[in-house]
Amino acid sequence: MKKNILIIPGDGIGQEVTTWGKQVLEAIAEKYNHEFVFDEAIMGHTAIEATGNPLPDETLEKAKASDAILFGAIGHAKYDNDPSAKVRPEQGLLKIRKELGLYANLRPILLFDELLDASSLKPEVLRGTDILFFRELTGDVYFGEKKRNEDNTFASDLMNYHRYEVERIARKAYEAARTRGKKLCSVDKANVLETSRLWREVVQELAKEYSDVETEHMFIDNAAMQLVKNPKKFDVVLTANLFGDILTDEASQIAGSMGMLASASIGDSTGFFEPIHGSAHDIAGQNKANPLASILSAALLLDIAFGLQEEAKAVTTAVADTLKAGWRTSDIANGETPADKILGTNEMGAKVLE
Amino acid sequence: MKKNILIIPGDGIGQEVTTWGKQVLEAIAEKYNHEFVFDEAIMGHTAIEATGNPLPDETLEKAKASDAILFGAIGHAKYDNDPSAKVRPEQGLLKIRKELGLYANLRPILLFDELLDASSLKPEVLRGTDILFFRELTGDVYFGEKKRNEDNTFASDLMNYHRYEVERIARKAYEAARTRGKKLCSVDKANVLETSRLWREVVQELAKEYSDVETEHMFIDNAAMQLVKNPKKFDVVLTANLFGDILTDEASQIAGSMGMLASASIGDSTGFFEPIHGSAHDIAGQNKANPLASILSAALLLDIAFGLQEEAKAVTTAVADTLKAGWRTSDIANGETPADKILGTNEMGAKVLE
Ligand SMILES: CC(C)[C@H](C(=O)O)[C@@H](O)C(=O)O
Ligand SMILES: CC(C)[C@H](C(=O)O)[C@@H](O)C(=O)O
Repeated sequence: MKKNILIIPGDGIGQEVTTWGKQVLEAIAEKYNHEFVFDEAIMGHTAIEATGNPLPDETLEKAKASDAILFGAIGHAKYDNDPSAKVRPEQGLLKIRKELGLYANLRPILLFDELLDASSLKPEVLRGTDILFFRELTGDVYFGEKKRNEDNTFASDLMNYHRYEVERIARKAYEAARTRGKKLCSVDKANVLETSRLWREVVQELAKEYSDVETEHMFIDNAAMQLVKNPKKFDVVLTANLFGDILTDEASQIAGSMGMLASASIGDSTGFFEPIHGSAHDIAGQNKANPLASILSAALLLDIAFGLQEEAKAVTTAVADTLKAGWRTSDIANGETPADKILGTNEMGAKVLE
Repeated sequence: MKKNILIIPGDGIGQEVTTWGKQVLEAIAEKYNHEFVFDEAIMGHTAIEATGNPLPDETLEKAKASDAILFGAIGHAKYDNDPSAKVRPEQGLLKIRKELGLYANLRPILLFDELLDASSLKPEVLRGTDILFFRELTGDVYFGEKKRNEDNTFASDLMNYHRYEVERIARKAYEAARTRGKKLCSVDKANVLETSRLWREVVQELAKEYSDVETEHMFIDNAAMQLVKNPKKFDVVLTANLFGDILTDEASQIAGSMGMLASASIGDSTGFFEPIHGSAHDIAGQNKANPLASILSAALLLDIAFGLQEEAKAVTTAVADTLKAGWRTSDIANGETPADKILGTNEMGAKVLE
């Protein structure tokens, strides 16, 4: 199989971890006789520094021309503390999601038995958890009109959804639920928001069509609570952009650490694969970041973008074996981890490659 | 002290638990020689059934005339599953918050040592947690303009904040932080939302004025994660209406159960005190609900509305002693609780009264 893969390391630890996602893809190409042609592009703070634009045209063109994209992370504390900045790294990520029509963000909560103890949740609460989130990614209050009045006394963001936006992601979620536990939980705030009431109506309609899947509707406040209380009860979770952002980060504690979670953004064409963690500038460049989320993103890329299930499986098995052998990065280590088992980014990447 | 207290039981388990909050107030009045004059009013589904209006004028008038309000819960599954219903129980609650100017919702996460094991979080993660949430309650996407186009293909809600709305609650939160751990964490999504950027600007300005308090800004996705990962790191948490709704429900798992958490809504005049749990129609009328959140709401009422610290303390001590003696309602029991220690709503209420 011949494929073009675009690597966008982005900001902060994105740089260090994406190297390992890429090396794993190279190793897979070699082992399974595929030809992966790599190109690289800039985005986010890195791109602002180089060109003034968080998503340069060249990056967008390369993205559109590629068969799949492996992305690192975005963001910089400089902008976070300057609420009045007009140009911001995140605009790059939001724009590429919109331009590539990446409306469905899949976030599987993959639980490695070896990491049960790394979580703040009790192992008996966690064991057996297997959730697949479908987060809508190109609508909601993320993309609605933003306003600020001239004297800075008022600001607004428009939360909004079109019926077709809800329907297309709900369909993807139902299709996935069919191949899994046949349960779908749709999360909204229909007791307060009009957007959520439209959302719920659309899902109720589809529920009839997918009557082999058990549909549940849950308010976001309750879902945030249930996810901590009893994560096992969830199978496929379908939700809007903002609620999905919050719930999936919260759910990262189930997997022991954000450093373990990968995501796939898909839509009309090229798929986009990235860790759910951020740029973590506080540990960037120190060989401390966990490369496993990037490596698992590479596995999702193989699986979802290229349909290479066997190759994807080889990657997740390599990660599982590395964990089984006791190797940890510091974010997933605990008090009982022997010091000589705690690895840096590069050492962990190399272990998985072995 | 002579005071008028309005009791609004509301819907579902609100009815059964509020009886106990009221009885505790009566007992306190008797013991400490106060004169509490009680009146009662309807709201929510109950009020829709009786009058067609989720907040009848009579209830609002009584509310305005009282010195404090003890509320139960609101909501009914009937409306949750009917997204097109025009009249909804929740409108009553939202309207009374707005009409009484209850812009600050205080939600203390009170951790009873006896309940450390009732949580899905590890005891060592929980121990020592002491968080006070300040949730903005009369602004945000809750009250912005809602639209639905005629052919039902589009819906929107306006998320918005005025500077003064952010400032007045931020001040209350800073004042509270001064009397506590001197740390304030403001939660927003300033990397995406204009509303959040205004929010952050205002808090940054106040941070200079309250320089004795350590200010931190955190994105909502990260906060949802940190709250599970390391709840101890928080002292005062300040946030907007929607984010506060989500975070405080999530945080209820820290206290072992939603059935344990009370809240105080304050603003320009009469204070409003309520459990954070909902109407839970599935267990309503079965003598199963935990009355402790209502009883602790009564304690908050004594403390915040009337400045009766000693009396409030007497109530929380009575709750703590009841727990220490091993009594539990089913929501806070665990596998090791002996069956004869598990009480119904009324028996638990009576134990605390003793
Ligand atoms: C960086 C930020 C804009 C982004 C989001 O909120 O979508 C991130 O938190 C994510 O979840 O991918
Ligand atoms: C019932 C609902 C409207 C309400 C809210 O979202 O504010 C509730 O969840 C709460 O937290 O008091």
